[in-house]
Amino acid sequence: MNDVLVNQKINERILLINKALDQSLPTTDHTPAIIHEAMRYSVNAGGKRLRPLLVLASAEAVGGDYLKAIQAACAIELIHTYSLIHDDLPSMDDDDYRRGKPTSHKVYGESIAILAGDALLTLAFELLTEVEKSANLSGATIAKIIREIACAAGSRGMIGGQVMDILSENKVVDEHTLKYIHSHKTGALFKASVRIGALIGGASETELKNLTEFAEKFGVAFQITDDILDVEGDSEKLGKTVGSDERKKKSTYPSLFGLEQSKILAAEAVDGALTSLNSFGEKADILKFFTSHLLNRTK
Amino acid sequence: MNDVLVNQKINERILLINKALDQSLPTTDHTPAIIHEAMRYSVNAGGKRLRPLLVLASAEAVGGDYLKAIQAACAIELIHTYSLIHDDLPSMDDDDYRRGKPTSHKVYGESIAILAGDALLTLAFELLTEVEKSANLSGATIAKIIREIACAAGSRGMIGGQVMDILSENKVVDEHTLKYIHSHKTGALFKASVRIGALIGGASETELKNLTEFAEKFGVAFQITDDILDVEGDSEKLGKTVGSDERKKKSTYPSLFGLEQSKILAAEAVDGALTSLNSFGEKADILKFFTSHLLNRTK
Repeated sequence: MNDVLVNQKINERILLINKALDQSLPTTDHTPAIIHEAMRYSVNAGGKRLRPLLVLASAEAVGGDYLKAIQAACAIELIHTYSLIHDDLPSMDDDDYRRGKPTSHKVYGESIAILAGDALLTLAFELLTEVEKSANLSGATIAKIIREIACAAGSRGMIGGQVMDILSENKVVDEHTLKYIHSHKTGALFKASVRIGALIGGASETELKNLTEFAEKFGVAFQITDDILDVEGDSEKLGKTVGSDERKKKSTYPSLFGLEQSKILAAEAVDGALTSLNSFGEKADILKFFTSHLLNRTK
Repeated sequence: MNDVLVNQKINERILLINKALDQSLPTTDHTPAIIHEAMRYSVNAGGKRLRPLLVLASAEAVGGDYLKAIQAACAIELIHTYSLIHDDLPSMDDDDYRRGKPTSHKVYGESIAILAGDALLTLAFELLTEVEKSANLSGATIAKIIREIACAAGSRGMIGGQVMDILSENKVVDEHTLKYIHSHKTGALFKASVRIGALIGGASETELKNLTEFAEKFGVAFQITDDILDVEGDSEKLGKTVGSDERKKKSTYPSLFGLEQSKILAAEAVDGALTSLNSFGEKADILKFFTSHLLNRTK
């Protein structure tokens, strides 16, 4: 499949994901309106929907029906959104803008922002229970999928990464700690996205193993290119000022390895990720597209 | 069963719940240690374990094996604990003490307190997936149990109640709003505790209906007696200063209906709750014990 066709497919799926997210979020008719307004505000604040797209693409890569993975895809996006709301809070990263828009606590105040995050996390698990109906999974598989996501998002996963990031503020960290932060704060949810897509799609043990390897390398490539973008990117396209990592004295790949070496490491991770997809052929076209385009990210 | 025997049984179960909670929480050997320390600190800060006890007692009331409900019971306690950590934050109720101990953000700082709450909520759902193994439930039942808890804890349940509570600060609210806050902020989780215990215990439709009615009335009685305690209670036993509702200008049953009328309403709710348990006989002895003792609560 050529890039134009893949792009078209991705755009169709983004519409599908946005529609499903809209349906899964309580409307502002529900009391108390403000919490549902705040939840919707952050979910609709212009994300690229990369994680839910990875869920669908992984279900497809193993020959499954990606439509059965749509609620799981939305659940992952809700968890990602909650984590951004809480990360942006004054007591955490203290960010006033995200993707060019005022952050939740700037619009709704701190208490509602915290509760909107809590509510999105809770709704994610509610949504995951819908997968049972649409994909007709056994109790054991439903339990496995929910456990996978809870582990990835919890204190030994994403939250652990955020804690380590906070503990490392204003410190020069070593390579080991930098990799810990990345693999937990962002990597864990990428891996869960790919793995639950694969599980819902009915992956074999070998397929699951290969896709897990893919996801780990994809996560590394994503984070290195993210760090590079913060040095070299275009503020307008990013929706945030560049150089924010340096101002916040955050350790990054460029600060630890230099810009050129970081680019080499990113390219290696992309190569590794693509190799893990070898056995999937055309079914993995969307995963391959996302991976190869990491090297020329602009946002 | 007489009260002494019931009390003994309850004490044994508290030990069982505490042991299961200890096993379900990551140890502080896990990186980052501080988040696991913070999670454990709040879970072990002296709760009465009323909600998990209700889960076990409800499983038993329908003739089920309460041991199969132990993970679900722990999950409910983790959700309750997370909600207390977040409620106590400076941007919410701004409480420095809870049950006589410094609140999480006073000990660990705001960012770790928020993340410890997030992690406990996430761990609750991880733990719920363990129910599948021990109780051998179908995909549909596992999904139903998780959905039940997520709905109760979410923006149309517990979080909705907390939002309404925040919106009502320094205002005299009407009866309708007071009841909304209570039934959502505390009532929803009581109802979920009883219902999931019943579901895991294999309740029939009628049993589930009766226990749901019981839980609603129990929740009302609990909240009224809680409000009365804040006026008449003993600070030392409560582990918090009495009169805090009045100082915070929170509307309560006593402020809206007067103390005497509140006591009458509490007694009516207790009677109603006990009546809903009529058909369960001795199997509901623990539920009956908790209910009748609400009227002479000291903490």
